[in-house]
Amino acid sequence: MGRASWPSHGPADLYCRHTSASLVIQENAAPAVRADLETFFERIAPEDPARYAHNDEGPDDMPAHIRAALIGVNLSIPLLEGRLALGTWQGIYLFEHRRAPHRREIAAHLIGE
Amino acid sequence: MGRASWPSHGPADLYCRHTSASLVIQENAAPAVRADLETFFERIAPEDPARYAHNDEGPDDMPAHIRAALIGVNLSIPLLEGRLALGTWQGIYLFEHRRAPHRREIAAHLIGE
Amino acid sequence: MGRASWPSHGPADLYCRHTSASLVIQENAAPAVRADLETFFERIAPEDPARYAHNDEGPDDMPAHIRAALIGVNLSIPLLEGRLALGTWQGIYLFEHRRAPHRREIAAHLIGE
Repeated sequence: MGRASWPSHGPADLYCRHTSASLVIQENAAPAVRADLETFFERIAPEDPARYAHNDEGPDDMPAHIRAALIGVNLSIPLLEGRLALGTWQGIYLFEHRRAPHRREIAAHLIGE
Repeated sequence: MGRASWPSHGPADLYCRHTSASLVIQENAAPAVRADLETFFERIAPEDPARYAHNDEGPDDMPAHIRAALIGVNLSIPLLEGRLALGTWQGIYLFEHRRAPHRREIAAHLIGE
Repeated sequence: MGRASWPSHGPADLYCRHTSASLVIQENAAPAVRADLETFFERIAPEDPARYAHNDEGPDDMPAHIRAALIGVNLSIPLLEGRLALGTWQGIYLFEHRRAPHRREIAAHLIGE
């Protein structure tokens, strides 16, 4: 879509095409928030092979699926007067749930007028 | 909407009209992922009447509401060139949180061009 | 948008512009469901300063971010024949995760035809 037809109002949709990474809106200032969020998930969905039947790609495989189910893979953020209606403290994050780096694809589109 | 007017780009929205079932994107290959996900929720939101004030429909009532709040009831998946932009390993699941089978209604719509 | 152009079909999007409050679809009848949901979150993400590095605004700061990440800040509810396609028992709630009252902004829009 050319910039000329960029809408000024409508939903901006982001979609993560994976089952072990998420899209999440979180605090954009203090990095400790993201570290604490990691720690929280390590506590409720730990890398403990005794807990999971699914272990095909290692101990971080099933915890990653659980985190993706909890946080989700899509966001819809309103576009208002040509700008994302993010709050002052909101940032958009791709939350990687696997230990090793992975290439991730995000589909995005804008509709509106 | 007739097939003739089916859009090729836009959001495909799915909405589960219940508070004890969810829509979730998850791994479409290994059934163990779904079993492990069930086990995870039984661990963090167990059927333990001592924990909950709300128990109107039995011990699986409140755990089902908790799971629905955590996972959510709507998905928005981009339609790109006439196809859902699902990743290779992504499947769309209705996640039933009650023990007994229930009839569930999903509202769906497509908009776009 | 004037009432004259109110669409009868399309997504109704709601977006909470904060990182410590959520939008959630939940049971609209029994208040005990909401109390049990609070208790659940106090259990899995308690106000325990020993757990969190981020504590800038007090012991309820980081638990609020965790809850917002888990539940999410946006909802997309289909508009069908001019009405939100909410199920019989569904209500839309702003879930405040901080202890003190806060002023919260929700962006909403409707698109469709």
